[in-house]
Amino acid sequence: MTLSLDPKQQAARTWFESLRNRICAEFEAIEREAGSDASFIYTPWDREAAGLTPGEGGGGVRGVMKGKIFEKVGVNVSTVAGEFAPEFAKTIHGADESPAFFATGISLVAHMANPHVPAVHMNTRYLVTSKSWFGGGADLNPPLPREEDTAHFHAELQAACDAHDADYYPRFKAWADDYFFIPHRGVHRGVGGIFYDHLECTDDAGFEANFAFTRAVGDAFLKAFPPIVRRRMGESWADEDYRTMLEWRGRYAEFNLVHDRGTLFGLKTGGNIDAILMSLPPMASWS
Amino acid sequence: MTLSLDPKQQAARTWFESLRNRICAEFEAIEREAGSDASFIYTPWDREAAGLTPGEGGGGVRGVMKGKIFEKVGVNVSTVAGEFAPEFAKTIHGADESPAFFATGISLVAHMANPHVPAVHMNTRYLVTSKSWFGGGADLNPPLPREEDTAHFHAELQAACDAHDADYYPRFKAWADDYFFIPHRGVHRGVGGIFYDHLECTDDAGFEANFAFTRAVGDAFLKAFPPIVRRRMGESWADEDYRTMLEWRGRYAEFNLVHDRGTLFGLKTGGNIDAILMSLPPMASWS
Repeated sequence: MTLSLDPKQQAARTWFESLRNRICAEFEAIEREAGSDASFIYTPWDREAAGLTPGEGGGGVRGVMKGKIFEKVGVNVSTVAGEFAPEFAKTIHGADESPAFFATGISLVAHMANPHVPAVHMNTRYLVTSKSWFGGGADLNPPLPREEDTAHFHAELQAACDAHDADYYPRFKAWADDYFFIPHRGVHRGVGGIFYDHLECTDDAGFEANFAFTRAVGDAFLKAFPPIVRRRMGESWADEDYRTMLEWRGRYAEFNLVHDRGTLFGLKTGGNIDAILMSLPPMASWS
Repeated sequence: MTLSLDPKQQAARTWFESLRNRICAEFEAIEREAGSDASFIYTPWDREAAGLTPGEGGGGVRGVMKGKIFEKVGVNVSTVAGEFAPEFAKTIHGADESPAFFATGISLVAHMANPHVPAVHMNTRYLVTSKSWFGGGADLNPPLPREEDTAHFHAELQAACDAHDADYYPRFKAWADDYFFIPHRGVHRGVGGIFYDHLECTDDAGFEANFAFTRAVGDAFLKAFPPIVRRRMGESWADEDYRTMLEWRGRYAEFNLVHDRGTLFGLKTGGNIDAILMSLPPMASWS
């Protein structure tokens, strides 16, 4: 079913899809620099075709590249609408009285071939229930953390935050530290980043401001991550570094399967299972 | 803290530990037949030492072998007592009024090096709250299922069941089919086995009967699994078979992290994290 979007929903969707195009082009350029001809393979999926309640609809496009530098990177965009299941609706901002929702967003996870290149996650989204808001975040997940990379990643996100609200960076950095944590291990899954949610759009000006911030987060991601990849992708690694990466990916899989809200949201709203679980690593170990 | 056990608790504990000894000896014998000198490494852990509420106690022994045939096999025994957290107590049989519990049991998961050899799980336990009961199960998880192995595994479990109650095998087989299922994938995690719980011990005769059945399940496991390993461990495999196994192990990890009640029980009762997650595969992939 084709969804009919209002102008704000359409603008957000168009942004997320254009950001996807820019990111995928940049990642493919990195593969070319490494002498690889790897490209993203795009698979559209349709929510209604999956047998959901009539009247619900939308879908998305799952993009996956398996390359020389990017062992497995997934970049998904989706735009969906429908009704939350009653129990789940209670847990969603503004959906406690009416379960209707609209969501559009981009979600990205990259697992890298070289243990010196950090894995990364980025996700931004626009949600509409009886309220409407933007949310998102990005965090860096190096198996072998390097101070220079961590500082660079945080600095780009901070610049995007500071240009919009002086409170954003300290708040959203702390939120990421709180969220990207594996309680049963007592460790963070990576070196952090930002996490934000419920940036409410109570009027047109609010929508414009929050949408501009969300676009800035996408732009910051493009300034932060590709330079780190280029800085590290030529470094050689030892077998022990590779084993460290596989174990570290096991922790990452634990976080995503046990705790991640985005994974839960996907499983509860009839999303595409391959798109939801594209965040899982191409190879992981538990010693 | 040393727990003081009543005679039934002590008898159950002694059985689980002796079953562990027999299983580990048999698995090490299989390694010898394959020309490997791999052995189990045993690591005791103490619940009180982990900083739990005073008055709680007990612990267990985590046994792990990484061999030529058994890529990674964990055999854990534990005997613990304490109080469930209030919210968790509500979900446990007989613990809704008083949160005190005692539990002793054995838990085993084997991930095999050869994709033609099935992985396997077995767990039996004796629980005491305001009620007391035995529970457990075993299921076969072949990456590349073979009718002969599946039939053999089920036949041994059926013989153990039929000797105790004609209703057991159909009930407990159906329970396994229901339990060992990955809802978000719509597939079973393996080819099944048996699952049973709340075999209540309302008097001494009930305890004796249920304990005898639980011992029979342990004996049946020893008759079922080692012959399957010996039948398949010499078979050669193609790269594609190995990749199938790694993907299949990804599904197994999803089941254990998202759905498994034993994993949840361990995480909620302050168990040893390495013992709880020993079920996770040594290597897994998500393509």
